[in-house]
This record gives sequence, C-alpha cells and structure tokens, in this order.
Amino acid sequence: MRKDLTTAEQHKLDNLFEDIKHHSENFLGYPVSKDFNYDALHRFLKYPLNNIGDPFMPSTWKVDTREMEREVIEFMADLLNAPKNNWWGYVTNGGSEGNMYGLYLARELFPKGMVYFSQGTHYSVNKNLRILNMQRVVIKSQHNGEIDYYDLKETIARNRHMPPIIFANIGTTMTEAKDDIKKIKEIMEDLAIDEYYIHADSALSGMIAPFLKPKPNFDFADGADSISISGHKFLGSPIPSGVVIAKKNNIDRISKSIAYIGSNDTTIPGSRNGFSPLVWWYAIKTLGKEGLQKRVDDSLKKAEYTLSRFIESGIDAWRNTNSITVVLPAPEQDVIEKWQLATEKGTTHLILMPNTPYETIDRILDDVIPSIKKKMQENVELEMVL
Amino acid sequence: MRKDLTTAEQHKLDNLFEDIKHHSENFLGYPVSKDFNYDALHRFLKYPLNNIGDPFMPSTWKVDTREMEREVIEFMADLLNAPKNNWWGYVTNGGSEGNMYGLYLARELFPKGMVYFSQGTHYSVNKNLRILNMQRVVIKSQHNGEIDYYDLKETIARNRHMPPIIFANIGTTMTEAKDDIKKIKEIMEDLAIDEYYIHADSALSGMIAPFLKPKPNFDFADGADSISISGHKFLGSPIPSGVVIAKKNNIDRISKSIAYIGSNDTTIPGSRNGFSPLVWWYAIKTLGKEGLQKRVDDSLKKAEYTLSRFIESGIDAWRNTNSITVVLPAPEQDVIEKWQLATEKGTTHLILMPNTPYETIDRILDDVIPSIKKKMQENVELEMVL
Repeated sequence: MRKDLTTAEQHKLDNLFEDIKHHSENFLGYPVSKDFNYDALHRFLKYPLNNIGDPFMPSTWKVDTREMEREVIEFMADLLNAPKNNWWGYVTNGGSEGNMYGLYLARELFPKGMVYFSQGTHYSVNKNLRILNMQRVVIKSQHNGEIDYYDLKETIARNRHMPPIIFANIGTTMTEAKDDIKKIKEIMEDLAIDEYYIHADSALSGMIAPFLKPKPNFDFADGADSISISGHKFLGSPIPSGVVIAKKNNIDRISKSIAYIGSNDTTIPGSRNGFSPLVWWYAIKTLGKEGLQKRVDDSLKKAEYTLSRFIESGIDAWRNTNSITVVLPAPEQDVIEKWQLATEKGTTHLILMPNTPYETIDRILDDVIPSIKKKMQENVELEMVL
Repeated sequence: MRKDLTTAEQHKLDNLFEDIKHHSENFLGYPVSKDFNYDALHRFLKYPLNNIGDPFMPSTWKVDTREMEREVIEFMADLLNAPKNNWWGYVTNGGSEGNMYGLYLARELFPKGMVYFSQGTHYSVNKNLRILNMQRVVIKSQHNGEIDYYDLKETIARNRHMPPIIFANIGTTMTEAKDDIKKIKEIMEDLAIDEYYIHADSALSGMIAPFLKPKPNFDFADGADSISISGHKFLGSPIPSGVVIAKKNNIDRISKSIAYIGSNDTTIPGSRNGFSPLVWWYAIKTLGKEGLQKRVDDSLKKAEYTLSRFIESGIDAWRNTNSITVVLPAPEQDVIEKWQLATEKGTTHLILMPNTPYETIDRILDDVIPSIKKKMQENVELEMVL
C-alpha cells in the first residue's frame, strides 16, 4: 500500500541529513549536547509507544515505558533532594512544559498569586503566563544576570496581599546566572509571608548544579516547590524532552480537583511520548552519577580554557562562578552567523557542553577572537576621531 | 565516559521490548495504527533536532526539519480545505496540544467567550480549559454520541451576551460520532450571532473524513476556524504527535500581542520535536492521497465485517455511518482486560484501524462474542427469576 520515495524526495531527505550533520558540528552558541548515541533504543520505534496519563497510576494501555519513566523520576527526585515520600513527576516534552506545569500548580494553589521573575528570564515564560492567565511583575537583573534581590524584596513588599509565586532561573539563557533560592526564602521570612511558591527553571543547570562544589542553592532542600529540567540540553537527547518534579502533596490537591471534573490525569499532555523516558533511563544508567560528574568537570575545564584564551587576547570576557557559559562582546555579523551564536544587545556567549573537542573550540576561537579584536580596534579609532 | 548496561539492566530493557511487542499485537480497543515503519528516519536521531519556534519564520538554529514541517502543513491545509493564503499551523506533540492551541486562540479572540461541547467529549478538554481559565457548558449528546443541536441552540440562546466557542468533536472517543459543523453554523445564523469560534477536535477522524463520500461537514470549508489532528492515531507514529491548522489572520492577531510582550514565538512549546515532522512527511510521501484513501477503505470494510459478525450472533452492536468504530455491549471483565478494551458504562468498542489482519479480528471476536452472549443469557435468566 506504500510506495517508495521518488528520487527527488529521497534526494531531499539525504540533503537534509547532510545539512543537519554539518550544522550540528558547527555550533557552540546553544546549550545542547551532541555526544549521545541511542542506537540501542531505535528498535522500540516500531511500536506505538504511549505513556498516557500519570506514570504512577495503573493504566489499561500497556504499550508504554512507564516503568522506566518511574525509575527516571525517582533518580531525579533523589538528585534534586526532593522530600522523602513527598515527590511526584513525569517526563515532559521539554523545559517549557515543565515550567508551565510548575506555574499551573502554583496558580491552582494560589489563584490570586502574583508571579515574579527577572529580566534575564527566557521569553517562553511570558507565553506560559499568558496561556495560564496569570499576572506578573518583571524584576531587575544584576549585571551578571542574577535576580536583583533588593528589587525583588521591595516589589513583593508593595504587593503583600497577593501570594508571591517566584519563577527562579537556575541558569539564565544568556549568562547562566543562578538565582539563590535560599536568599529568596529569607526575603519571604523577612516580610512574614507564609503563602508563596518557588518554581526553579533549571532547564540547563538542573543536570549540572547537583555536581558543583559548593552546590548552588537551587533544589528542594533549599526551598524549591517544583523544578523543571530539559533533557536535550546537558543530558543530550535527539528529541526535546524534560523532567518536572513537584511536591506530591501539592499535586494531590490538584488531582482531587481534576477528579471532580471527571479526570485523574495529572500531566499536561494527553498521550505522552514513551521514547524520551527510555532515552533518559538509558543515559542515566550508562552514565551513572560518576559519569554525570565527569561531564560537569569536563565542561568546567573547557569553559576555563575558553575564558583564558579571551583574557590572554585582551578581550573583556567573563563567566559566572562554576558556569559553563563564557560571555563575550559580539564579533562581526558574518562570524555570528557562521557559528550560530545567539546574540543580544552586543553580547554573545559560548557554551562549553560536555565533550566538545578542543579542536572545535580552537577552530571557533581562532575565528571569533580576531573578529572581536578588529571591532575593538575600530571602536578605538572611532573614539580618537570624535 | 559511558559504561555498558549491566546484565540486569539489559535484561530489563529486552523484557520491556518483548512486552511492548506482545501488547501492541493484542488490541483493537484503541484508535492507534500499528502498520508503520520509519526505519529510514532513525539515522536522524543521532542529532539534536529542534524545530524551535514558528515553522514559517527564519531562525538562526539550523539543526531542524522545518522545511519538511512546512510541506506537511501545506498538505494538510489543502486536505482540510483551509482558505487559500490564509492558513498557518505546526506539528504538535499530540491532539491535546492542538486542542489547547485552538482554544487558546479562541480565548485571545474572545476573552469573554463561553465554551460549549458535548457529553461525549474527551476528558482532556476539561484539563485544557482549566489550564486556560475558560468557562464552559456541557451540552447533551444524542444517543449516537453526536452533540444535541436542540440543546446547543437553547443553551447558547440563554447566553447570547457571551461569544460562543464551540469545541466540536469530529469522532468522539467512544462512538466516533461527528458533530456537524454546518448545522452549528446555522444555529449561529438563526440566533444572529456574528462573533463565535469553532474548533474541530479531529484527533482520529481528521485523517479519515476527507476521504469519505459524502464528506462529513467538519473542515474549514464547512466553517471550522481551527482543526487538530493526531499523528499517532490513523496515520501511525511511534511517538505521539499531531498537526494543528488555524486561520492565519487569527494567528496574526495573537502574534502581534506576543511580539508586544517580547516574543514572536507562535507555538505552544519552546523547543519542538523535529523527528515527528519527518514521520508525517515520510508517511504522506509514501502513502500519497491514494494510499490514504486505501487505508480508509480498508478500515471501513473491516468495520462492516466486524459489525456483521455481531449482528449474525444476535448481539446488539452498531456503528455510526462511515465510522471505523463498532460499539457493543461490554463482555466479561477478564475478556476486557485480555484485549485492552476501553469500556464505559457497560459499553465498549472495537476500532478497525488500517491493515488489521482478519486473523486478529477473528481471534478477538471468537473470544468476545461468546462472552457477550453468556452475559446476555445470564441477564435473561435473571429476568425470569425476578
């Protein structure tokens, strides 16, 4: 009943493959790991996998990978110091869905809540808040991209009648700045606010921060109520995915309400991707905590190396403590496009994802450094003219 | 840096594979196609595919399949009679996301709108409306599962101050009933309502209805403003996916507002699955309209056969016109579980997805028919006693 692709169609598919291969070898500007291999899992794609509904509830549908999904969630709950016997979660279609879940949960707990987040926050958060119909205030960022705690406290103080919902960044998009959840909790205590919610958007850093010394203040032990992490970022996956973990007692409050309207489905999608939990499971099992630690150490070492190359060249680059992102002045436009560099207001960054070969780093630096220096020189000359 | 799976882990993975294989051979109760093979696409899974953002807007990120995605959307827009040069869409993570998109669009157009849908509607719609913070009224269903147009008209008439947002079912979960969008439009005209929105949830039937004669009244030509279809249902895909198509002028109104809040991303997720658009593209290219027509004809023939087997056995089974779902009294519990039969209030169904072998159908019927007859006999005896 099926026909072969025409020659033109086959050619198009092959070209796309070569393009994708080429483009994925030539970027350091996005927080996406490339050092993965899940060939061992491809055989599962012959079947209509579907992890429909809550991974922890029984289901009549059996073509699923929910057993592996539960192991993944358990591993992550432990890694993120979730309270014993009071966690729940599922594998999402990406960090953004996990963020929507955290905000949805917060809104159900505090329908009159006000959301606070810093200027450095990813644009998708505004979209999520719009979908969820929630009010928000944008808080100033410090120079390094971290939230301005003084501005946060002042602003919350003026809205004490509305339960604060803090959307904390554990690794902002541009500078990988991490908001300090302990400091945020102290603000609540100072203001005698007892009804609040903290969601940690840990898309990139959620798989890094548990392995840093000292550990950043970002997890459940530090005060987070829910955490969202991407799978296609530090862990590496061919399809965008993520994990969201939340406190089970909060979920139970939602589940009840949903049961009342005729559904005990606690996740956002209906049918759910059953392949991504296998990817997470396989990555966790083949890396282990030791392997994850090594990935983090490798990235840090290369970020240090990259930064030193800029400093040696007299370029004003910098990075946040223990971050794998090096922030630098933008080079010329053709260089930006050649290396797919995400650029904002004259600033760009290189993100040293695990196992990036030194050869790749050097190839990019040998292009980027002269281009920045040329721009610097032009600016000096311009100043002398003026 | 990576280690092999332990023997126990490998064993677990292999067992899961065998389980999945076994379970996917033994169901007729879910609207999920199993006759697919996308081996030719697995090589793409070596790369971090990501169709981030609007498929029709330029992007600096290039490890994507957005070119194929645009072809898929164009094909579907044509199939669904979308207005020339006034359509937009993207490949979703499933029918539920497409429904959320349609409802989100409706809410942005009519913030004070009231949502109407029938009793037979899938439970995920309540969840979507809750996330979106929208009001709704449930309308009675007719016996066959179609919306009760009289009740719909009466109810809208009592709320004429609120723009109606109709969530139409093009194939309900239990009986594959299709609401008639032309009739719904006539109601609006009768009530002189000029501000309204119709979303068509065509999860299963969206890939069937265009090939039926006469064509059901369900598409853009009949009055739909947006349509959501699942990829893992009639088309067949290993990972839940879908397509949502909407009128471009409505999207543009939303895009503007999103640009205002700092984002021109018009889809619901942030990072987006780049593998599913390849699956859709490959399926469409290798089937073509002729292949899709054959799939529909095959399913209809087998639904007819299945129904006739029940009728011959004196069992009160039935199906909606041109539907591939046969509705029947539930058999005994062990038979329900053995064949993964979705059952509600003493009723169950068999869904004749394309290329289900007659041998599988007969194997299931030879188990289900005697079980129903046994229950019927017990009921007769019970009545005689009483």
